[in-house]
Amino acid sequence: MIKNDLFLRALKGEEVSRPPVWMMRQAGRYLPEFMVLKEKYDFFTRCRTPELAAEITVQPIRIVKPDAAILFSDILVIPQAMNIDVEMKPGVGPWVPQPIRSAADVAQVIVPEIDETLGYVMDAIKLTKEMLNDEVPLIGFAGSPWTILCYAVEGKGSKSFDTAKSFCFSQPEAAHQLLQKITDTTIAYLKEKVRHGVNAVQVFDSWGGMLSPEDYQTFSWPYINQIVEALSPLTEVIVFGKGCWFALDTMAQSKASALGVDWTCSPEIARKLTGGNVTLQGNFDPSRLFTPIPELKKMVHEMIDRFGKDKYVVNLGHGILPTVPVDHAKAFIEAVKEYAN
Amino acid sequence: MIKNDLFLRALKGEEVSRPPVWMMRQAGRYLPEFMVLKEKYDFFTRCRTPELAAEITVQPIRIVKPDAAILFSDILVIPQAMNIDVEMKPGVGPWVPQPIRSAADVAQVIVPEIDETLGYVMDAIKLTKEMLNDEVPLIGFAGSPWTILCYAVEGKGSKSFDTAKSFCFSQPEAAHQLLQKITDTTIAYLKEKVRHGVNAVQVFDSWGGMLSPEDYQTFSWPYINQIVEALSPLTEVIVFGKGCWFALDTMAQSKASALGVDWTCSPEIARKLTGGNVTLQGNFDPSRLFTPIPELKKMVHEMIDRFGKDKYVVNLGHGILPTVPVDHAKAFIEAVKEYAN
Repeated sequence: MIKNDLFLRALKGEEVSRPPVWMMRQAGRYLPEFMVLKEKYDFFTRCRTPELAAEITVQPIRIVKPDAAILFSDILVIPQAMNIDVEMKPGVGPWVPQPIRSAADVAQVIVPEIDETLGYVMDAIKLTKEMLNDEVPLIGFAGSPWTILCYAVEGKGSKSFDTAKSFCFSQPEAAHQLLQKITDTTIAYLKEKVRHGVNAVQVFDSWGGMLSPEDYQTFSWPYINQIVEALSPLTEVIVFGKGCWFALDTMAQSKASALGVDWTCSPEIARKLTGGNVTLQGNFDPSRLFTPIPELKKMVHEMIDRFGKDKYVVNLGHGILPTVPVDHAKAFIEAVKEYAN
Repeated sequence: MIKNDLFLRALKGEEVSRPPVWMMRQAGRYLPEFMVLKEKYDFFTRCRTPELAAEITVQPIRIVKPDAAILFSDILVIPQAMNIDVEMKPGVGPWVPQPIRSAADVAQVIVPEIDETLGYVMDAIKLTKEMLNDEVPLIGFAGSPWTILCYAVEGKGSKSFDTAKSFCFSQPEAAHQLLQKITDTTIAYLKEKVRHGVNAVQVFDSWGGMLSPEDYQTFSWPYINQIVEALSPLTEVIVFGKGCWFALDTMAQSKASALGVDWTCSPEIARKLTGGNVTLQGNFDPSRLFTPIPELKKMVHEMIDRFGKDKYVVNLGHGILPTVPVDHAKAFIEAVKEYAN
């Protein structure tokens, strides 16, 4: 049994003394201890070496002490396993030398055996679970199929993923075939993660907010929902769609345990759109961590008051920024622990 | 008098036979005629040479035939006039060699005399008005103070403008001083534009959607509203905040003639949030112009049906993409002209 089970209880909608807290990208560049490993090992070496991934995962548990750990990895290990070459270019970010642009390209994409291609993730889970010693739960994650398609087609990060979108709008059949392959792979991958011990999974739809509500219902949500349907009998599933306020009502009808919200959607609107009965997670603006600490803590308490302490997981509205001072990150977590309603 | 006054009538809320249409960035890289001038003259030469700016402004009027022209210029001519050096780096975009990062930097920023610094824009307006020969109205524009601050502080384009935001959150007094200087300059600038003949002005809050609803009300909206208050007695004012669905209710209470909406906000939600009585403008996803033409035209007709033909200006939800085929841009405009409800 997990000793600190606040996070899991909030996902199940149980009453808690205070909401749990973790931060997206909590194992990241704002931590000097992470930077030491980043200097020594390149990005995918860190992902693929179980000892490194496990060590990076538990660093924030020791240092900033959130109520849940999230396995250090990347959403792009999925396209890599599917025969799509993905590199991480320093200073540039993800880079796909041969992006998917046609039905013929989609035909080359495989749905792999997970143990053959992503076994290193399972090894990292086993090692992390040992290191965590059941102190806090461990979250596994994957990108949404739409978000993975964005990188696979665009070939790199983008402000608006216009190439990926124009591919979908001009070649919808090929797009749907690719999305289904990614979905099948992701379901198998997350099932294996659960089998190896993660206590919850989160699906990151980082680029769902680039779509209109109609196109979201066509190209993103149906595939996320396949994942939710397949995983929800096995574990708690969190869906986070950045910029996807317009789909919160649909998401709330699904079997997801919790829905992530970003900072552009107020707690009141988020509760209203989701019907008030589903656990919500978020939504502190990552840039707001630069606020002087006393005001920062006050803002965290106000945020909890507005969401309500139950059916709520405190988090940022997106990943923590590399430039945030560690004491500000600690203050964010402490503020939640100091909360008394 | 303007011969085709559909656009101005829609802004005034008058009944029209069909809604007017124009496209953000309609004078842009998707037009081969624009590319000829782009090859010859660099970005700010095109902005600063009245003959070039006027020619570029009227190109889309001849080729794709929208119901309004928008003066070719850039939102960054304002910081340039304020003593902030801004360059346009090919392949990179806006570049500020010495970004504003402190109260001391803000103190160096001036509120300039418009005729001394931006007289070339007024000359371009005079020339454009002659070339347009009162066929269609001419729109002038400016960036919102918040959006200009984003570039001035971040120093370049960004996915999330974290540096600009952390400046505001850690040095709010300096941020507000800078915002006020930009606002004062922008008001004087737009008043001069009106005096020289533009028939409406649009304020582009391209990066307002990076802020939480509370921070938007602190750092963006009050300054936009100063502009609306100052300009609305003189001309029609359109406010377009990309990603600012959460502020549409506030905006609808202002003296703005129309509000721009992006494609993540459905027509029904936009009408609901704005109370149903203000003219709306938008919101076709620019990437959706890649849709095959028959389906594209059908989507435009559906969009008009959903917004309603009155109190509505058909537009994209953001600027047209450089890669859009000209015949698809033409089809977008034609679809509106063919609309019969």
